[in-house]
Formats: sequence, C-alpha cells, structure tokens
Amino acid sequence: MNLSLSTLRAAYADKELSPRDVFAIIGERCEQYRDHNIWIHQLSSAELEPYFQRLEGLEPTSLPLYGIPFAIKDNIDLAGIPTTAACEDFTYTPESSAFVVQRLIDAGAIPVGKANLDQFATGLVGTRSPWGACKNSFDPSMVSGGSSAGSAVSVALGMATFSLGTDTAGSGRVPACFNNLVGVKPSIGLLSASGMLPACRSLDCITIFALQCDDANAVLSVAEGEDSSDAYSRANPFANSTRHYGQWQGALRMGVLPASQLAFFGHEGYEQCYQQSLAAIGSQGVELVEVDFSPFIEAARLLYEGPWVAERFIATSPLIQKRPEALLDVTRTIISAGDKGSAVEAFRAQYRLKELRKAATAILASVDCLLTPTAARPYSIDEVNADPITLNSHLGYYTNYMNLFDLAGVAFPTGFTSSGFPFGLTLVGEAFTDRRLLSVANRLQQLFTLPLGKEQSPYQQLATLPVSDQQRIAVAVCG
Amino acid sequence: MNLSLSTLRAAYADKELSPRDVFAIIGERCEQYRDHNIWIHQLSSAELEPYFQRLEGLEPTSLPLYGIPFAIKDNIDLAGIPTTAACEDFTYTPESSAFVVQRLIDAGAIPVGKANLDQFATGLVGTRSPWGACKNSFDPSMVSGGSSAGSAVSVALGMATFSLGTDTAGSGRVPACFNNLVGVKPSIGLLSASGMLPACRSLDCITIFALQCDDANAVLSVAEGEDSSDAYSRANPFANSTRHYGQWQGALRMGVLPASQLAFFGHEGYEQCYQQSLAAIGSQGVELVEVDFSPFIEAARLLYEGPWVAERFIATSPLIQKRPEALLDVTRTIISAGDKGSAVEAFRAQYRLKELRKAATAILASVDCLLTPTAARPYSIDEVNADPITLNSHLGYYTNYMNLFDLAGVAFPTGFTSSGFPFGLTLVGEAFTDRRLLSVANRLQQLFTLPLGKEQSPYQQLATLPVSDQQRIAVAVCG
Repeated sequence: MNLSLSTLRAAYADKELSPRDVFAIIGERCEQYRDHNIWIHQLSSAELEPYFQRLEGLEPTSLPLYGIPFAIKDNIDLAGIPTTAACEDFTYTPESSAFVVQRLIDAGAIPVGKANLDQFATGLVGTRSPWGACKNSFDPSMVSGGSSAGSAVSVALGMATFSLGTDTAGSGRVPACFNNLVGVKPSIGLLSASGMLPACRSLDCITIFALQCDDANAVLSVAEGEDSSDAYSRANPFANSTRHYGQWQGALRMGVLPASQLAFFGHEGYEQCYQQSLAAIGSQGVELVEVDFSPFIEAARLLYEGPWVAERFIATSPLIQKRPEALLDVTRTIISAGDKGSAVEAFRAQYRLKELRKAATAILASVDCLLTPTAARPYSIDEVNADPITLNSHLGYYTNYMNLFDLAGVAFPTGFTSSGFPFGLTLVGEAFTDRRLLSVANRLQQLFTLPLGKEQSPYQQLATLPVSDQQRIAVAVCG
Repeated sequence: MNLSLSTLRAAYADKELSPRDVFAIIGERCEQYRDHNIWIHQLSSAELEPYFQRLEGLEPTSLPLYGIPFAIKDNIDLAGIPTTAACEDFTYTPESSAFVVQRLIDAGAIPVGKANLDQFATGLVGTRSPWGACKNSFDPSMVSGGSSAGSAVSVALGMATFSLGTDTAGSGRVPACFNNLVGVKPSIGLLSASGMLPACRSLDCITIFALQCDDANAVLSVAEGEDSSDAYSRANPFANSTRHYGQWQGALRMGVLPASQLAFFGHEGYEQCYQQSLAAIGSQGVELVEVDFSPFIEAARLLYEGPWVAERFIATSPLIQKRPEALLDVTRTIISAGDKGSAVEAFRAQYRLKELRKAATAILASVDCLLTPTAARPYSIDEVNADPITLNSHLGYYTNYMNLFDLAGVAFPTGFTSSGFPFGLTLVGEAFTDRRLLSVANRLQQLFTLPLGKEQSPYQQLATLPVSDQQRIAVAVCG
C-alpha cells in the first residue's frame, strides 16, 4: 500500500483504516528497513498515543492532514523529543515544536520520528552521521543524498506520506533526486524557520519531500504562514497562494544549460537520463532555450569557498569551540574554517554575489523557469567515504547557488538509469514563484509514468486538476 | 532671483533669460560666497561652453531640465572633471559621467561644479574636508551638515536649482535640515550608483536636494531608472512611478516618537521647533500615533559600531592601507577600524539587523509613514572641531538606521528657531514609497510659509497639484 495523501484520505474517509492501522504498517516497514539507518528517534507507542487519542472521535474529513504520517529531519524540533542534529553532544530536548511542525500536527498529521541527516546539515551525501550512513531506497550500496537523508528515504520506502527536510545547499533536492521523490525547496521565509537549527541562518529553509506534487502542495498549504518570531519569515504574496496551484496551462519557455556548462562527472547513466527527459519535455511543446549558467556556477562556489561558512560556525558554537572532537572529522574540517574570515572578505563576497544575482535576474526574466538536472550524479557510500569532500561538492553543482540567489525550486523525478537508479530535474524560479513551479512540475510529471517512491504501486496516476493561471488577478468588486 | 525649477522654466520659455545669463548670476554668487567652501571644482567658462552650445538652437520646452544648473557631490563622477572624494591623493579623472549625472545632462541640466563633502562621505557635519569646513547657509559659524555639505549649501544660496548628494547614514537629509531644503533619500537602487564612489556599497544611494518637493520629484523622474551595470539597482514598481506624485489626499496616520525616545542633546530651539511643527500637522487632521522607535535606534548604532564600517575600508583601499596619512585624522580613525572585524561578527550583526527589521516592518505597516525630526540639533563648526566624533554621532540619531532597514525618506523644512536657524522633519516609509512620501511632504509643506532656501524670495508658493492616489490601480483593458 502506498501512503500518498489521496490513498490515505480515501482509506480514512471510508473507515477502511485508522491511524493506528497505518502506524502498524509503518512500524513493520521501519523494522524491515532498519539497516538503512533512517531514524535517529522513532516515536514509541507511548509517544504516539497522544496523537492517536487526539484524532479519535474526529471526522477524518475535518482536518486536512488527519492521521497523515510524516518524518521530521532531526534538526527541526518536535516537542518532548531530543533534537540531535546528528551530533550526540549537541542534543537538547525542546519544550515546543517548530512553528511548521506545530501547524502540521494541528492539521492532524502524526510524526513518525526524527530522521537521520548529515551532521549539522552539512553535506549532500547522507553518510556523515554517527547514526550510520543512510542508505539509498533503491540501492543500499549507494548514498541516499543529504543532508535530509532519512527524511527522503522514509517517504520513498513508505514510512511516511511526506517529510520535512532543510535546504541550504541542496539538501532538500538532491535526496529527492536519488529516491524518486518530489522535493520542494520553498522561497526563503515562506516556511518559518522557528524551531529549526540553522546551518546558514540567512539562507536556510525547511523543505518538503513527497511522492507527488499534489501532496507537496497540500502540505505546503498547511505549513506556510508568516511567523513574527522568525526574522527571516516573509509574507506570501497573493499570486503565490495555494489557490494558484494547478496545471499552469499554455505555452512554456524554459531555460536550459548549454552543453558546455553541463556536468555529470563521468556518469553516463545520468547524462542519458537528462537528455531523454529533456527530449520528452521538448517534444510536448515546451520551448527549451539555452541560457548562460555561469553566474549560477560562480555563486555555487561562493557558498563553501566564501564567507558563508562563518554562519555554520555560528550555528555550531560554542560546541565547536569548546569540544571540537564532538563533531565528525569531516564536519569539523568544513565548519572550523568558518572562524577564519574577515568582515572585509564577507562584504566583498556579498558584493560579488549581488553582481552575479543581477545577471541571474536578467536570465530568469527571459523564461518561465529554469530546468536543470537536480544532481550531477550519484556515488556509492564507499566512494564517498574514500573522498568525502570532493565528491560531496559534485553533488551540489546544480543546487548550491539557489538560496544565495533567494530562488525557489521544485525537484521532481523523470526517469531511471538502465540500472534502475532514479533521476530527476529541478524547476527554478524567483522567490515566491513556488506555486508556479509546483504547477509546472505537476504538468510535466504527466509526461512520465513512474512508480511512487520505491516500489509503491500503483504507478503514478495524476488527476487532471482545475486550470489555474497566475497571470489572472482576483478582483474584489464593491458597488 | 530664486533658481526654482518653475522660475527658470518660465524665464527660459519666455526668453527672458538664457542659460549663459543664469550661469553669470551663479558665477557672481559663487564669488560672493567663496568663504563658504562650497566647491572643490567649479566649472570654468571653457568647461561650461559645450553644455551651453548643446542647448543653443533647442527649444527650452523640448528638454525637461533645459539649462537647469545643478551641483554634484564630489564622490560622483562628471566626465573629464576630477573626482576627489575630498581626498587629494585619491583623485582620479573619470572618462564618463555617473549614470544619473548623464541622464540629467541628457535632459538639459548643466553642472555648476563638484561640491565639497566630508572626506569619503564619512561624516554628517561637513567640516571634514581638506578644502575647508563647508559653512552653513544661514549662519556661517554653524556646520552645514554633511557629508553632502556643498551640495546642500549651493542650492540654499542660489547657485544651483538642485544638487546630487549621497546618503549612507543621513548625508542626504541632515544638510537639508540645516539649510532649509527638501532632501530626498530615495529607496536604495532607485537611482543607479554607477559612477558613485561608495561609502558602504550595500547601503549607499544618490540623493537629491531641492528647494521644494515639486522640483525634487521632477529631478527624480529624470534621474531614476534601472541600470544593468549596477548590481544594487532595482526596477521601480508601477505604484512608485512619477505619475503617482501628487497631494496624497485624504486622512493620514503617522507614527511619531514617544517623548522618552526623542533626543535633542540639549538644544531647546530644536525641541521647540519640533513640538510646534508637530502641533501644526496634528491640527490639520493628521492622526499622530506614538510608535516604538527602539528598533530604529538600535539599528542606528549598528551602522558604526557593527561590521558595516568594513565597507568603508573596502571603498578606500588600497589607499588607506598603502598611505593612511593621505586621509584626515578623524576619517582614518573611523575607517581604519573597518579592517578589524571577522566574518562571524558580520553575520551575527546581520542576524540582529534582520530581527530589528522585522520589528520595524510591523511598526511601518501600522501607519502611512513615520514622522521624525531630521536632525537632533545643529552644532557650531568650533564645537565639532573640538569633539569631532561624538557630536557627529548625535547628528545621526534620527537617520543612521534608514539604509540598513532599506527604507525611503524625504526631509522637508518646517520652521526656524527663534535665532533663525532652519529646522525640518523627515517622512519615512518602506522601500519604493518614494512618491508617496514626496506627495505627503508636498501636502504638509502647504501648512508652513517658508522662504526657498536662504533668502531666496518669494516665499514658497505651492500650486495645487492634481490629485493622485497610490491606492488606485491603472487597468489596461483589452476588448
């Protein structure tokens, strides 16, 4: 049984299943996939009981996420459960849940557990955790992608309908690509970051993994909302509100990379998948125009080579100053460099970023959105362990720039390599075009017949949703 | 004769005067006020000649700024004339004019000269220049305000219809207050900064001094426009376009400071002027509500105590590194501190700023605009020379936060102390409310009968302008 929102809603509405039944199935799957190192903390029966009791006596249709199981990356707070950020010595137990988590629970969702991650959300691999490398849902010898590793794999393997990740450099997108999922990296501030441990506080956002765009949109609609206690929270413009989710009808013009700027780091399977996916989309009347990706590539490099690593240092201090040995070697190596830079260097890098952003703005204004591979290639866990920093950096080739440029992105699956490993693309747009991107992703998804996550039949059956068009303006008429 | 735009336009249209005639009068005034240290470079007859020749044979009504004299702060480029930033050793001669200067010249305006300033635009006093302290137009023993000192005084004393200043901490507003002028500090990026030497590049903007709001709006309309070569340039939203300049009819609700947050540093005359101005505005049906100014005050302190001084260091390097003695003592003392800070400190300060901005956003959303004194008090040149840093900081009490918060401001005169020194208020709004602020300032101006600048009769005669209201939406109808 797949755990898509429509499947569970129908089963609850028809009284075929109760939330307790669904969590019994999930419990079995957690046991079955224990070797995947998905969970840092799986909620016990006692911990789940209050969630079940709260829903008893309520009509399933009375709450938008009634009984819907979800995973929480373990750098986001769930009241009463430890937050570790995959670092035992950092652990604390929050009294209240993150703003977004609380909204989801209020809407009826039930947390399955706190999911494994690259320590302090620093990494795109999912191997950098004292709780073990999180294994890919399709091939356990391969990386899951990270840092939101357990969040993605738990959805792909049918332990949650959706999950919360976070994204600084690509952590909400790369694991979606490697596990046949939709990954929504919302505009910064669309989802409150209150109760989320930052990696780079000025860039971070909470993300959503789901089996399909409809589910992601439904979760986003519940989770979003301005939060006066988060300085980076922003009001959602009307044009990006949930009512604008739909099929995004009509002609589309997308920016794609010229061949010279594509990188697959030797992975022929991913290169083939990319060309096939693009051909499928191009054959459906979507105009694909080559745009210069160089400002994006340069900005991507700034994220780790520039001053922003100082933000990671801030987020992990004072632990990294007092007991640096509490961190994994690779994590400490990366983050401890954040203490070195000067304010002069920080401002110089921000000037350069502003120049690159200006160039990116002009490029984005010429198309409906960009369309890029989500990740350049996957690696095996052994490969990453042998060369943890360089290979990790390859995974961020198409993702690192996004938050520095204050953009929105939706990663969605489009196919499989000949060996059966998932591949996907990402749509990229300006901040607060989230609904447009989700709508376009939903439309493009209908070109591809794919399973939901890993072996969750039936194959994706997308409903034809009501037409919606952001260019229309809702007019209030008085008279 | 006053040099207001309407006066000169009428005189040119009626062929009563030619640009040469006007510049002859200006030349006499420059001579008369030579002791005021207004100019670093006054254009020679030979340098002016091409500007005159270009206009000959053109109808005065064919160009919006035909023959209009303007002053340029000497940190903004004019082709072929040295830019000094009030530091001889820094001097260079640009081949092309600043983006904004070129637009003004293209519209018919003629530069009078490059105006004196606090060295590297660092200061609010107008005394920090090797070309001598710029003297106040109303009382030569008093400071002119800075850093855009000569720009303001040249307009007040009838040597220019308008002038360009720059503003990081208040340099486009404090000198307006001290010289009975309107000072427009536009939204960052509304006027291109190409060809402007930055003080703090992420915060700076070019400003406009004028005798009245109508003139400032006309100049702004010519000067504004997105510039692809300036990374900080931004497109002007339709609601802020020049067509929305007017009287801003209807009820107004303005935020004012509670008594406990006002500061005049012992200057009773300014305190009296403030209370009288507020009473006059309140008696005209403007609702004045007290708002908490503390986030603004804390942000103001961040500008010099926080990491942003690193930007000044960048702007003056490599000179300040190679030959620090080339700078004035006070300027070097302030700017050389900018080399000390770390990237960690820079990001921490940016986090704090973001929190303060969130609080400010809520305050600004509750009113049409804020209404504050422009400057806390004036000082004499002797007083400032005796205590150059502390007294300077007092002048920025109501201004320093504005660019850190990405706000717009319009300073306008509202009265005189009993000893005849000018006083003024500032309207403050979100970025890209420039036209709203100018419109409101124009409306409030009609409550006060004041001379134009210094001794430029006649007293201000404000025309009743066409009603305009930003809340209306222009609708394109197809059918």
